[in-house]
Amino acid sequence: MARSRLTPERESELYETVIDLLGEVGYDGLTMDAIAARTRSSKATLYRQWGSKPELVAQSLRHHKPVRIAEIDTGSLRGDFHEIIGSSDDCRMAKDSAMMRGLAHAVGENPELHEALRELLIEPEVTGLDQILRRAVERGEVAADNPALGLVPHMMIGAVVARSFIEDRPVDQAFLTAYVDAVVLPALGAP
Amino acid sequence: MARSRLTPERESELYETVIDLLGEVGYDGLTMDAIAARTRSSKATLYRQWGSKPELVAQSLRHHKPVRIAEIDTGSLRGDFHEIIGSSDDCRMAKDSAMMRGLAHAVGENPELHEALRELLIEPEVTGLDQILRRAVERGEVAADNPALGLVPHMMIGAVVARSFIEDRPVDQAFLTAYVDAVVLPALGAP
Repeated sequence: MARSRLTPERESELYETVIDLLGEVGYDGLTMDAIAARTRSSKATLYRQWGSKPELVAQSLRHHKPVRIAEIDTGSLRGDFHEIIGSSDDCRMAKDSAMMRGLAHAVGENPELHEALRELLIEPEVTGLDQILRRAVERGEVAADNPALGLVPHMMIGAVVARSFIEDRPVDQAFLTAYVDAVVLPALGAP
Repeated sequence: MARSRLTPERESELYETVIDLLGEVGYDGLTMDAIAARTRSSKATLYRQWGSKPELVAQSLRHHKPVRIAEIDTGSLRGDFHEIIGSSDDCRMAKDSAMMRGLAHAVGENPELHEALRELLIEPEVTGLDQILRRAVERGEVAADNPALGLVPHMMIGAVVARSFIEDRPVDQAFLTAYVDAVVLPALGAP
């Protein structure tokens, strides 16, 4: 009996609300009460369907999954990076940046949450970047022993997080494109 | 009458406790009660001396100020970066990294705190890096129009924050040295 299951549309709306709230109040400040109020759901429904806050947050992250980097293949490393950046708009980037900051402390304190974040967001990004970089090495654009090859996720995630700290505004397409051209490609020795 | 003023030693200990707690529970979780309990002070003393939590955190950040980058001048950019990294030990770096994560969300929500963080930690670091980079340009190690010159703080702060996300361990001297050699110096085209 599906009496109180949410429709897929309502479920999708609820996941996006969780991502928004994470950015606004952080993981510690995120309460089931606030989610229920913002989505006009009952707390009983939330607990019945997701069990707990970490599970609901993990499912929201899974739903809000990033661009599939692994599917991008433009024929050049520079083209691939620009395609990755172009496939997410500034509004989405601002939201993701706020969400990352909202999770930054909590992941250190909550191993289950960190595991979910790693599995759902970080590993796919790292794996996707690895594939793009492997093809660049095969094409001869990057030397196979370039020591920056293992540090591309640090450069990229770092650029997203650091901009809020340093310049008080979220990352956007123009900044990330300039960063890739000025930092990431030169560090890799790529054209 | 200095009846309940803290001694400089007690004050210093209290500031370090605030930094520790920030890393442990984050800014939102940091309460005057917890600070009073951990430092065996009365809350009345804390409020009398610092007025409010943002002020106490700002003063703690000021006390816990980073290495004076601007005073480093080894004669080469690579030497200067290695000296910056060598002047902070792994334990201190882990503490600073936890503190940054503890503040990451709060700075987005609390303009006064962000202003204090910017003035006391970020601006001195950015200014110090600028001086080191200016000398490297004067020595001819870096081209004056290299577009990565304005992105060095992003690369450095990014490396510190991103490692916790990606590898689940804090930044240390060995990682930062490898990062400078593989990413920062090549992006700048420096030897």
